Parts: sequence; C-alpha cells; structure tokens
Amino acid sequence: MAEYEDIREQFLRETPRFEGRLITVCERMVRLPNGREAQREIVYHKGAAAIVPVDAQGMVTLVRQYRTALETEMLEIPAGKLDTAAEDPLVCAHRELQEETGLSAEHMELLTPMYPTPGYDTEVVAIYLATGLSQHETHPDDDEFLRIERMPLTQAVDRVMHGELGDAKTAIGLLMAARKLCL
Amino acid sequence: MAEYEDIREQFLRETPRFEGRLITVCERMVRLPNGREAQREIVYHKGAAAIVPVDAQGMVTLVRQYRTALETEMLEIPAGKLDTAAEDPLVCAHRELQEETGLSAEHMELLTPMYPTPGYDTEVVAIYLATGLSQHETHPDDDEFLRIERMPLTQAVDRVMHGELGDAKTAIGLLMAARKLCL
Repeated sequence: MAEYEDIREQFLRETPRFEGRLITVCERMVRLPNGREAQREIVYHKGAAAIVPVDAQGMVTLVRQYRTALETEMLEIPAGKLDTAAEDPLVCAHRELQEETGLSAEHMELLTPMYPTPGYDTEVVAIYLATGLSQHETHPDDDEFLRIERMPLTQAVDRVMHGELGDAKTAIGLLMAARKLCL
Repeated sequence: MAEYEDIREQFLRETPRFEGRLITVCERMVRLPNGREAQREIVYHKGAAAIVPVDAQGMVTLVRQYRTALETEMLEIPAGKLDTAAEDPLVCAHRELQEETGLSAEHMELLTPMYPTPGYDTEVVAIYLATGLSQHETHPDDDEFLRIERMPLTQAVDRVMHGELGDAKTAIGLLMAARKLCL
C-alpha cells in the first residue's frame, strides 16, 4: 500500500472497552500521516452473509423482521452472521437462506463484499445472488420472528428507488441483482 | 405498527456499557413475541450524510481515505457525521461536500435514507444526489487526510458491479444515481 502512504494511519495500540456476545468495542490509538496521534473507536464484528434469491419468474423472496435498534420492522434480503470469523460466507449463505426462507439454491454467485460502516466497524457482509431455487420447509432459529414476503424483483427495486428499502445490504443486493439480470 | 404485532419486540430496559466520542454502546433487554426475554447489544450513532456529486459531463467525484477499522484505504462518496443528532442532514451534506471536495451544489436531492447495520446500530445515512456543481477550494478538517479521484459515473458503477467499491453508502449512492440518471 506504499502508493497511499500519504493518507495511511499507523496502528499504535488498543484497549478493549466492551465485550459482548455480538460485538467487541476497542479504543485504538493511531499515528496520522502528519505524525500526530488520534483516537479511534472500533466495533469488532465477525461478519455476515446475505442473499438475493431470485426465482425463474423473476420473483425475489424477502424477510420482514423487527429491528430493535431502529424500533421498527424492516423488509430485508435473507441474511445471517457467520458462525465464526473463519466460516466460509458461502456456507453461511446457503444455511441462512434455508433457515429463513426454506429455499435451497443451485447457484450462489458473489455479487460483492459490502462494508456497512468502514469508519468504525470491521463488519463485512458477503452478498450473493441465489438462483436455481427450490422450496423446502423453513427452519427459523429459536427466538427468530420473521415474515416472508415475495414480490417481483423489479417492484423491489422500485421500492429501493423510492427510498423505502433502506437496509444497506438489501438496497445493494437488489440493485446489483437487477443490473446483473438486466431488469 | 399493529399490523406487525406478531414479530414486534418490546423494549424493557437498557444499560450503558461504553460511552465514546463517536458511539455509545448499551445492552438492552427486550420481550420477544413469544413472551421470552432476550438481550440485544445496541450501538448508538448520531447519523451522517453522504453525497454523490455528478457534474454536467457525467463525472463523479470520490474521496480516498484510510479506514483503520478495515486497515486499508477505501474509495468512497463524500460523507460526514451530523454535528448533532438534530442537525438537518441536508445542511450536513452541503458542508461535507464543500469541506471534502470544494464542490458546491445547486441541487441536492435525497436518494434514500440508508441503515448500514439495522441489527445492532442506530445509524442512518441520508444519501443525496448533488448536481449543478461548481468548484471552490477545499477545506478539509484538521487531521482529515483525503485524496480526490474523479471518474465517469458509468466507470464507478462498473467498479461497484465488479465488487471493487464495497463501502455501503458508496455502492448504494452510485447505483441509485446511475439508475436515476438512466446511465
């Protein structure tokens, strides 16, 4: 990364401040390119996988969930956390798709790695396009409350364009899937 | 929200665990729809605004920054935190565009509110399309190290589609701008 030496921050030291089940928070000291020290707050998260499941009729399957951080329910593409930071996100994608929607996918293509908040969070979400779908029974996690909603992918993209589906992985996944499928 | 009573979580109580300059972290207890209690970790963040500045020639202005959480530099649309949670994101958008790129915009249109990580973070990013641009001098914040990069919006979108611009606000902003401008 010598090319960007003039904007690079150098890691100096870090102190854990909160260790939860989902996230760990640290205060990190860095050296700025001008030699001064600065403090950063860093949220550590294991990462996740998210899936845009599109069937042969161009219908996408979404899940509606309550999001306590925002105190509202949201319509999102299926997704879930990696079991460990070392888990292959493709394995996670197949598992979460099956658990949340009962769908299995013959083809699972990586659309993009997505960084929700690179300013302070290590989380990466691998977003996949799932095709060649077949429907099985759902196996939601205990204490996971979901509603499945199906609609044409074109309609879901219209809702993104109207600012109605603002979950980051959902907006990116739907827009990329539509562009890839020329919809 | 009576329509979604079957998936709703009820706020019970919460305890602050970390209070930083950028974020606050709380542990929250909620009651699930099945009556059981569950613990959630919540990151509080004031919110932000992000801008896709597209000129009359279809060129977009991006900023390259070092992101210590990911230990790499990233190419992103201009963006910045709200001064307070009550600040109008439109005011923030004009200020950050000017500070980071020296651009002022005649038109600033909201593309979407974006929720980077609704599972555990309250942050909302208002993403705007900025047009009618004129160039002034840049006024970066002290201790903010940026490189400006300009390219055709179509090229930036191609890079999103190749998985090369994974910052959430950047991917969404570029894809929505291109779709809105029929590029």
